[in-house]
Amino acid sequence: MAQVVTFGEIMLRLAPEGYLRFVQAENLGATFGGGEANVAVSLANFNIDAAFVTKLPKHEIGQAAVNSLRRYGVDTTLITRGGERVGIYYLEKGASQRPSKVIYDRAGSAIAKAAQEDFDWDQIFDGCRWFHFTGITPALGQNVADICLTACKKAKEKGITVSCDLNFRKNLWSSEQAGKTMGALMEYVDVCIANEEDADKVFGIKADGTDVDGGKLNHEGYKSVAKQLTDRFHLKAAAITLRTSHSANDNDWAAMLYDGTDYHFSKSYAVHIVDRVGGGDSFGAGLIYAMLQGYSSQDTIEFATAASCLKHSIETDFNHVTVAEVQALVSGGGSGRVQR
Amino acid sequence: MAQVVTFGEIMLRLAPEGYLRFVQAENLGATFGGGEANVAVSLANFNIDAAFVTKLPKHEIGQAAVNSLRRYGVDTTLITRGGERVGIYYLEKGASQRPSKVIYDRAGSAIAKAAQEDFDWDQIFDGCRWFHFTGITPALGQNVADICLTACKKAKEKGITVSCDLNFRKNLWSSEQAGKTMGALMEYVDVCIANEEDADKVFGIKADGTDVDGGKLNHEGYKSVAKQLTDRFHLKAAAITLRTSHSANDNDWAAMLYDGTDYHFSKSYAVHIVDRVGGGDSFGAGLIYAMLQGYSSQDTIEFATAASCLKHSIETDFNHVTVAEVQALVSGGGSGRVQR
Amino acid sequence: MAQVVTFGEIMLRLAPEGYLRFVQAENLGATFGGGEANVAVSLANFNIDAAFVTKLPKHEIGQAAVNSLRRYGVDTTLITRGGERVGIYYLEKGASQRPSKVIYDRAGSAIAKAAQEDFDWDQIFDGCRWFHFTGITPALGQNVADICLTACKKAKEKGITVSCDLNFRKNLWSSEQAGKTMGALMEYVDVCIANEEDADKVFGIKADGTDVDGGKLNHEGYKSVAKQLTDRFHLKAAAITLRTSHSANDNDWAAMLYDGTDYHFSKSYAVHIVDRVGGGDSFGAGLIYAMLQGYSSQDTIEFATAASCLKHSIETDFNHVTVAEVQALVSGGGSGRVQR
Amino acid sequence: MAQVVTFGEIMLRLAPEGYLRFVQAENLGATFGGGEANVAVSLANFNIDAAFVTKLPKHEIGQAAVNSLRRYGVDTTLITRGGERVGIYYLEKGASQRPSKVIYDRAGSAIAKAAQEDFDWDQIFDGCRWFHFTGITPALGQNVADICLTACKKAKEKGITVSCDLNFRKNLWSSEQAGKTMGALMEYVDVCIANEEDADKVFGIKADGTDVDGGKLNHEGYKSVAKQLTDRFHLKAAAITLRTSHSANDNDWAAMLYDGTDYHFSKSYAVHIVDRVGGGDSFGAGLIYAMLQGYSSQDTIEFATAASCLKHSIETDFNHVTVAEVQALVSGGGSGRVQR
Amino acid sequence: MAQVVTFGEIMLRLAPEGYLRFVQAENLGATFGGGEANVAVSLANFNIDAAFVTKLPKHEIGQAAVNSLRRYGVDTTLITRGGERVGIYYLEKGASQRPSKVIYDRAGSAIAKAAQEDFDWDQIFDGCRWFHFTGITPALGQNVADICLTACKKAKEKGITVSCDLNFRKNLWSSEQAGKTMGALMEYVDVCIANEEDADKVFGIKADGTDVDGGKLNHEGYKSVAKQLTDRFHLKAAAITLRTSHSANDNDWAAMLYDGTDYHFSKSYAVHIVDRVGGGDSFGAGLIYAMLQGYSSQDTIEFATAASCLKHSIETDFNHVTVAEVQALVSGGGSGRVQR
Amino acid sequence: MAQVVTFGEIMLRLAPEGYLRFVQAENLGATFGGGEANVAVSLANFNIDAAFVTKLPKHEIGQAAVNSLRRYGVDTTLITRGGERVGIYYLEKGASQRPSKVIYDRAGSAIAKAAQEDFDWDQIFDGCRWFHFTGITPALGQNVADICLTACKKAKEKGITVSCDLNFRKNLWSSEQAGKTMGALMEYVDVCIANEEDADKVFGIKADGTDVDGGKLNHEGYKSVAKQLTDRFHLKAAAITLRTSHSANDNDWAAMLYDGTDYHFSKSYAVHIVDRVGGGDSFGAGLIYAMLQGYSSQDTIEFATAASCLKHSIETDFNHVTVAEVQALVSGGGSGRVQR
Repeated sequence: MAQVVTFGEIMLRLAPEGYLRFVQAENLGATFGGGEANVAVSLANFNIDAAFVTKLPKHEIGQAAVNSLRRYGVDTTLITRGGERVGIYYLEKGASQRPSKVIYDRAGSAIAKAAQEDFDWDQIFDGCRWFHFTGITPALGQNVADICLTACKKAKEKGITVSCDLNFRKNLWSSEQAGKTMGALMEYVDVCIANEEDADKVFGIKADGTDVDGGKLNHEGYKSVAKQLTDRFHLKAAAITLRTSHSANDNDWAAMLYDGTDYHFSKSYAVHIVDRVGGGDSFGAGLIYAMLQGYSSQDTIEFATAASCLKHSIETDFNHVTVAEVQALVSGGGSGRVQR
Repeated sequence: MAQVVTFGEIMLRLAPEGYLRFVQAENLGATFGGGEANVAVSLANFNIDAAFVTKLPKHEIGQAAVNSLRRYGVDTTLITRGGERVGIYYLEKGASQRPSKVIYDRAGSAIAKAAQEDFDWDQIFDGCRWFHFTGITPALGQNVADICLTACKKAKEKGITVSCDLNFRKNLWSSEQAGKTMGALMEYVDVCIANEEDADKVFGIKADGTDVDGGKLNHEGYKSVAKQLTDRFHLKAAAITLRTSHSANDNDWAAMLYDGTDYHFSKSYAVHIVDRVGGGDSFGAGLIYAMLQGYSSQDTIEFATAASCLKHSIETDFNHVTVAEVQALVSGGGSGRVQR
Repeated sequence: MAQVVTFGEIMLRLAPEGYLRFVQAENLGATFGGGEANVAVSLANFNIDAAFVTKLPKHEIGQAAVNSLRRYGVDTTLITRGGERVGIYYLEKGASQRPSKVIYDRAGSAIAKAAQEDFDWDQIFDGCRWFHFTGITPALGQNVADICLTACKKAKEKGITVSCDLNFRKNLWSSEQAGKTMGALMEYVDVCIANEEDADKVFGIKADGTDVDGGKLNHEGYKSVAKQLTDRFHLKAAAITLRTSHSANDNDWAAMLYDGTDYHFSKSYAVHIVDRVGGGDSFGAGLIYAMLQGYSSQDTIEFATAASCLKHSIETDFNHVTVAEVQALVSGGGSGRVQR
Repeated sequence: MAQVVTFGEIMLRLAPEGYLRFVQAENLGATFGGGEANVAVSLANFNIDAAFVTKLPKHEIGQAAVNSLRRYGVDTTLITRGGERVGIYYLEKGASQRPSKVIYDRAGSAIAKAAQEDFDWDQIFDGCRWFHFTGITPALGQNVADICLTACKKAKEKGITVSCDLNFRKNLWSSEQAGKTMGALMEYVDVCIANEEDADKVFGIKADGTDVDGGKLNHEGYKSVAKQLTDRFHLKAAAITLRTSHSANDNDWAAMLYDGTDYHFSKSYAVHIVDRVGGGDSFGAGLIYAMLQGYSSQDTIEFATAASCLKHSIETDFNHVTVAEVQALVSGGGSGRVQR
Repeated sequence: MAQVVTFGEIMLRLAPEGYLRFVQAENLGATFGGGEANVAVSLANFNIDAAFVTKLPKHEIGQAAVNSLRRYGVDTTLITRGGERVGIYYLEKGASQRPSKVIYDRAGSAIAKAAQEDFDWDQIFDGCRWFHFTGITPALGQNVADICLTACKKAKEKGITVSCDLNFRKNLWSSEQAGKTMGALMEYVDVCIANEEDADKVFGIKADGTDVDGGKLNHEGYKSVAKQLTDRFHLKAAAITLRTSHSANDNDWAAMLYDGTDYHFSKSYAVHIVDRVGGGDSFGAGLIYAMLQGYSSQDTIEFATAASCLKHSIETDFNHVTVAEVQALVSGGGSGRVQR
Repeated sequence: MAQVVTFGEIMLRLAPEGYLRFVQAENLGATFGGGEANVAVSLANFNIDAAFVTKLPKHEIGQAAVNSLRRYGVDTTLITRGGERVGIYYLEKGASQRPSKVIYDRAGSAIAKAAQEDFDWDQIFDGCRWFHFTGITPALGQNVADICLTACKKAKEKGITVSCDLNFRKNLWSSEQAGKTMGALMEYVDVCIANEEDADKVFGIKADGTDVDGGKLNHEGYKSVAKQLTDRFHLKAAAITLRTSHSANDNDWAAMLYDGTDYHFSKSYAVHIVDRVGGGDSFGAGLIYAMLQGYSSQDTIEFATAASCLKHSIETDFNHVTVAEVQALVSGGGSGRVQR
């Protein structure tokens, strides 16, 4: 029985070593990741009973995906086995002015072809307190959007808190499709995570004065986005991540939580990037952890931001940090002195 | 203008290092291969102008596939660019009693979704003397089978020799489908390559007294298969490869050529396997090379068998040997003494 | 609730890459293994609910050991966390006439310093049907031998089948110590696994006419050893593994099961070795699996031997094979032909 | 028929992994590179038909050099095969205050021992629009300088634009030798690329107020150098690269183009270095590309500088970027946000 | 006969590749290091005859430790062979806000269990001019502290200069134990190296106004610490290293030497960290070298600081730089321009 | 003062990983080796004081060569530093019927250009009992042959035993040159090592009935060769190695010693090859060791053969085995059972 259930796709991540470009690679690091899976691993690393729900083929590549989650303590017993393929994403790590590049090869994956009957949400939600998904999952296809809706309704029925990270993916669907589908799902969502771009692309919610590509951030704009989201969807809380991208190596990272009453901004961190993928997911996990523990709004946003700040220093999608490590950073660590 | 044109799919080959099983791998060797591509590379290594025809996406993974061929001198200028994905096969290398294992993830690849208008065979066959394909290509889908038929007809029209390696793949189609489609294509084929299992599974041509799994070989049976193939399809020549599998590490390897008159058996080699994939393709390339050079039937089968014997000692799908190296083995080398 | 519980030490295994000697290595493969842990992983790979019981430090090296088990589905929730260090063994892989070499650095490990109160056997054995340990565990120290005795008594009390692999380690204790301690434990054992050398070194049970170093095997001698073991300790069954070592690369492998009535010899396999460590443990796991499934004596010994035959083709201590793969070998596979 | 022909040496580049020093390395990355080869690869990556001309041994190391170029689409059919050795350079990557270190082992290479009759410039220049070489090529020996002169004269004869990157190498020749030889060659050069140090060391052309080691840059000084070069050698254009070296990890990078009328300065980029080698060559390729496309002077210098800015983020000598990627940076990219 | 003798422990250093966390690693870089061993290697790289004294097991892991020193020219003939194990430290490299982490597994090592009779200091000090140890060595156990005292007394007797780097390790002993033991040893010390934290933790010597974790440095405070140390223990010189830790990637590094008369501050370097371990040891080696050469106090502190600045750019514990490289940095290098 | 001095060239050995062919490699293992250096390392591993004499450049590649010897205990203090380059050999490991391939790039190395005054043989031979060189050294050039002659004369003068391994290299000189130069040197040689091919190619000494390429061995022929060598050059002993090459993976290995009175044949070993290079050198080292220890002729040939049998199981040129390991094989080991 898992306290937190996340639902989505876990993909094989194929990445050239170091800063090699795709056309130079003769070996690919083969790990696994995906928005909701990343959240589940992060929570397991915080010692939360977390289950990840998806559909994966019975063959060895599917098994390796399962094993990648079990290894870090995620409950994988609710995963449906079947289908033909594990979705893939190719990742080339950027440096300096050269951006990281992702090529998706996820069409036709087992979860993208899943059916309602593949999942028994009554059983899945047994003992659950929190359900999390991202905007990527319903974008996989109408069938998956429908399953997601079923899950949301069932969660609501059972009094489970529902969180959603908007996570707009332009190669999976259009803003129109996203707006319509996500709008319906948001009816069941309690906590929404977004960055400014997501809110705009999915719901047309804009904050003036912010230039995403240039990386300029605007605190008032973020407040406005969070308020609009919260008001439109009757949220309990909306969290906005604030990334300023100086280069592929150096970003500033901060976040804001609007709890319906006040706006809580976290400290801002200058991060030297080891692996930027999964940054948002680690934020979501930190947020869920802190809210489950009953942290204050300010402590919540500081915990979530510090957790995701640390993620940027860790290879692969998964955020391998403990609660103690996050708290050490919140408490003023971060100078990077050797811990003996 | 290429002397030899081969047509088919080139896939990304993802293989754990050494003898690691799929579930142990955290890195995958990323090379490229596929029946007809392997033949083209082998011919280019023999200094034959060889072109490989396929369809590949414009993105970097598609580009890497093109580059893998260019690197070894294959003409890639006739490749159509477009489509979404590069087909994949996962390869786990066997050892001792544990067999190698292949998991295909090739559905929906650019070539599998190609259309007749993607290929201008008049242009492709400009200056061509030999056209080669395998039974895998038409198995990719009816559309590809149709393209293959167009190519065969055009080749015949232009007096180009056509060769086909039966290469039955049970996960791509049934024996019934294969028999029907391949039967139609064989009308245009001059030289057929097969092993006993292919001939049986595709055309129901059997040779009594041979136990494929047990690896027992029967010379009379092979003669019978070659004669039946030749007679049924009016071939100029039929070549049968003879593999005795003692273990995943040790095989015996030989072959036979029936030229419509006589049966020519090659020497048999006890091979210690480095990489067995592409063994049949390297045989095909050796056969095409020798026939293009006008070798006698016996010299032809010896060259093709020696070339493919050496392939078993080379990592990845491609056979990186020169004509001189093959001839050295034919001439009695093979003791493996250091060449300084 | 685990069907099978195994108890012992899991060590960090540090091994140079390929055939490098210790003095050449600048990198060490870092995996985990140990007799009873290996059995648990193998059973989990057979889809048996298997738990491994030990004590491991709370730090990241201890956590990595836990993760290595979780990854393959072993229940690690019964592991006690505490102590200072994870035991280590350095492994250098042999080749040809050069033997593999093991250097142990396991003194002072968390499990070697464990106390009775670290383990609540009532809780551990909840729902358990089979308990397994090896002669290595009691050899870690009198404290661990005492814990082992407690476990055996509790298992007997609960009607749990107890199996023991004698596994004599001369660097951990003398034959005298081993004989005395193991003798007391054998009172509770139902199924004993040994090779001829173990039986001799621990209990002075000899079979004439066998030369262990020379690798000559003697069927009658093995029968005699099994009968003596069974009679002296009132066993339900005794299994003897039969290894003929031709070189570090090539061994013959077979086994015999005495069920108190008949002697059942398995097929013998000529194995080309990838990694020989854990061969005996994989045999034990196969035996436990087959007996839990109620296989006949002959089917049991064939399954156990085939499972362990395959282990020799797999890197690291753990045997990553499925029931289907073992059965395929039992049913006459083993020629190593590619599985597509 | 290649639009652009470059002529020079391609060397085996042997580099320890990551930041290891030479004395620590047990493996060396083995790639290929050299000024003019780097330019040819970069142009091929821009989809320009580019041929590289050199002499390389027939053995496998020579073949591997050819393959490294073919892989990325460079025309290698004009390369002369023969001679004994492939030149080598050992590269140790610097970090922070520790500089990168190059040890050359190129004496006696096939190209360094080449003769006039190894190259048929009439054939080589068939269809060519642009000929490029660097100051390294004539420095390989008087024979190579003579070949270079022959090529320049033939190019002039055929109305081919000639560009030269001064690239002074103090370990190959003295300033005196360089000045004399390069002076003669410059008679045929249309476009000259240099940095301030080259202009000084080769032709004694100085710009006051610039401290190369300290990395202080002086715009007026650069203008003066470009004008002096242009005036003395009747150039159509002179381009000066402006590097400010803060550390082995961090440089500022910009450039200036003097088109005989105006001085065009590019944007300046703060680059975080992955691999600095080939930075100048990638600038040359960008310049040639832009001039071939008829870009304006300002667009030309922006394109060349952005192309070479990106090179600093790419491992090995070759600049693997597309025209679209360069244009994205020119158009205001560079914040390094992930491209999905 | 070695000019400089250092005494202490050399450990096997096991470190995940790159920035991988412990729980992600499947391979560990296996090198060797330890305070005094690092000093010896650094001195050998400066062409000083340096011997390292310790006790190491006779097995291959012990031999590999010896070889790691011999490889770089350290005299290992005075090492006592015996005992059971080589101490280990696990090192996880930090990045950005995530600190590096060290897990020690050194209890029970051969040197930690050594006895007085394992070392013949008369023989060891034959021809010696300088003896160096750190506060880690006596912390290994009372037996080792006693051996250290014997060595110090003998050194004093022979007129050998004695230096000590305080190097407080809280996991080896308490401040109370350290203060008592080190206080006794300091009676024989001529040159003391410390950072502010060491002086405080071992001797309670504090400098107001400095915040170690925040990385704020205070020149007056450092002077005060050096003066207190010198006065209390009648030192000839005290050197203080000044690290400001901005993140795990970026530190400022400088040092100060108090020669009993004046305070000499070095230049401060902004270092981009490749490997921070051994930074202090490389400073010690630089100091010893400079003092042995009779450098002025200012030149001494500049040399020692530059040497240790460069260490931060070098993988593993050992500082592989030459005197010429250090002098180049002292003389104004550091811009990281490629050395060809 | 070294007991044994060997003189020759040590080269950088660049080898693709595993069984990759040269044209596939993107990384090269970078170790060092060469006939006489290999002998010195092997002797150092036997705890003999062995010095290697050569000339090596002062740069880091030369230093790395020195370090590779120091690491294993070879005395490198007699090496002359200077010259430009370290000789290189590229090694591609063969498998099955595909032979290993060596490409030399050693012309112009520091030792090949050395002069008489680079070596002070009086100093070098101080305390020496045995001098060893191979036929490769004088083949490097007349200058090196002259130095070799000087060394031989000085050795004779001092009563030092001189051994020579004929080691004919056809790419360095002709049989005529070899015969003349080696004939002059043999005047000073006491112990000669050869295989049948060497004796024939250098001195025209033939043994009928042996087919080297086919690997057929003929005991009588070997006796004849040894006797002819001994008689012609007044040797104390002649040793002949007997290799039967079944494939690149499997050889039989034995040897014979003629002591002027009797012919002593060793056991024959069926070796499964890990790395065959340096096999002959390890034999020479075993022979020198055994003769220095005063072993009987039969014990000598058994020791030398067993030592070199083990070499075939060890990666790189150097034979990392101890006297105890060799003796274990002589005493009947070789079954490859794990040593715990």
